[in-house]
Amino acid sequence: MKLGIKPTSTRPDGSPRYTLPAIYDPSTAVYISDSFCIAEYLERTYPETPSIFPHNTIAFQSLYEGNIEACLLQSIIPFILPDAGDKLNPASQDYYRRSRSEDIGRPLDEIKPKGEAAVALWGKFKEGLGKVDAWYAKNDGPFLMGDMLSWADFVTGSSLIFLRTVWGTDSKQWKDISSWHGGRWETLLGSSLRQYQTVT
Amino acid sequence: MKLGIKPTSTRPDGSPRYTLPAIYDPSTAVYISDSFCIAEYLERTYPETPSIFPHNTIAFQSLYEGNIEACLLQSIIPFILPDAGDKLNPASQDYYRRSRSEDIGRPLDEIKPKGEAAVALWGKFKEGLGKVDAWYAKNDGPFLMGDMLSWADFVTGSSLIFLRTVWGTDSKQWKDISSWHGGRWETLLGSSLRQYQTVT
Repeated sequence: MKLGIKPTSTRPDGSPRYTLPAIYDPSTAVYISDSFCIAEYLERTYPETPSIFPHNTIAFQSLYEGNIEACLLQSIIPFILPDAGDKLNPASQDYYRRSRSEDIGRPLDEIKPKGEAAVALWGKFKEGLGKVDAWYAKNDGPFLMGDMLSWADFVTGSSLIFLRTVWGTDSKQWKDISSWHGGRWETLLGSSLRQYQTVT
Repeated sequence: MKLGIKPTSTRPDGSPRYTLPAIYDPSTAVYISDSFCIAEYLERTYPETPSIFPHNTIAFQSLYEGNIEACLLQSIIPFILPDAGDKLNPASQDYYRRSRSEDIGRPLDEIKPKGEAAVALWGKFKEGLGKVDAWYAKNDGPFLMGDMLSWADFVTGSSLIFLRTVWGTDSKQWKDISSWHGGRWETLLGSSLRQYQTVT
């Protein structure tokens, strides 16, 4: 079956890279992938529905994702990437470990920090999340734009939900994160963004 | 005379670093330096005046400056920093060349790219400014938030005004920049932000 969807990007070897999420809108016969492009499409096509880029903040919103990655990614990847494989079904696990090891350039299970290195890197993650907390603290209200929910909160929230899903709400790691920054992340996920979550 | 102003930051040797701009507000007896901190102070103290962080975008606005620097700074510094010295009075020139050379780690006049290297680096600057153009293009209207002026436009505008002031409107460099990205920068400075500029 030939789908109308275009690849999200190109792999280093030149082959097309298809990604999830992806949608098909039957009312316009449009296929589209990449979260931000999907949001942009829905915003443009259905202007009468609630806006995810309120008050013409789309440029800011597109910048936000890169900024939060710069704050968090380097410190959290060595912790979460090896553990995330355990949540997949066996067939996916093989593919996941092989492809992620190729991406990183060494076996996935070797990147997990131990002992003092783990303590230091976890501290760096807390520090990075502290920068995100400082952005949130610039306004009153639970969201980055104060009381106004927007794309940025879904970026922040889904990053944290990824960690919570892999480690579980009762894990030492999640309890630690929940206790940071005045409980901001626990409140964001457990209360402010609760209605937008599908519990899996 | 002892001023009430606090240093903006600390130098590597531990001594205080004072910066301009700085203000003193006689109605609250507050001294304050650093553009963003001044804007934050004015916004908080005079909420009835037009907002520079409209619709609770202060967190986004604070991120924007870092993002525009990441796009432009590395490619433009070698061109503009040596030329900027020529605009200062003789006494300031000596200090400027000495302190900037110390910051960079080699004589200021040696960092200017020449020949093919200059062409390549100027191309990189155009490419970086193209990213900023793409952010602006996400909304209709002259400003980053469409028709709504905000802090981000002053950041973009003042960066470009720095270049225009050093090189002059009739320079090859400014004419080049003016022709880029559908004339966006010429329009931003010459029309949309015109009323906010004091011509020096």
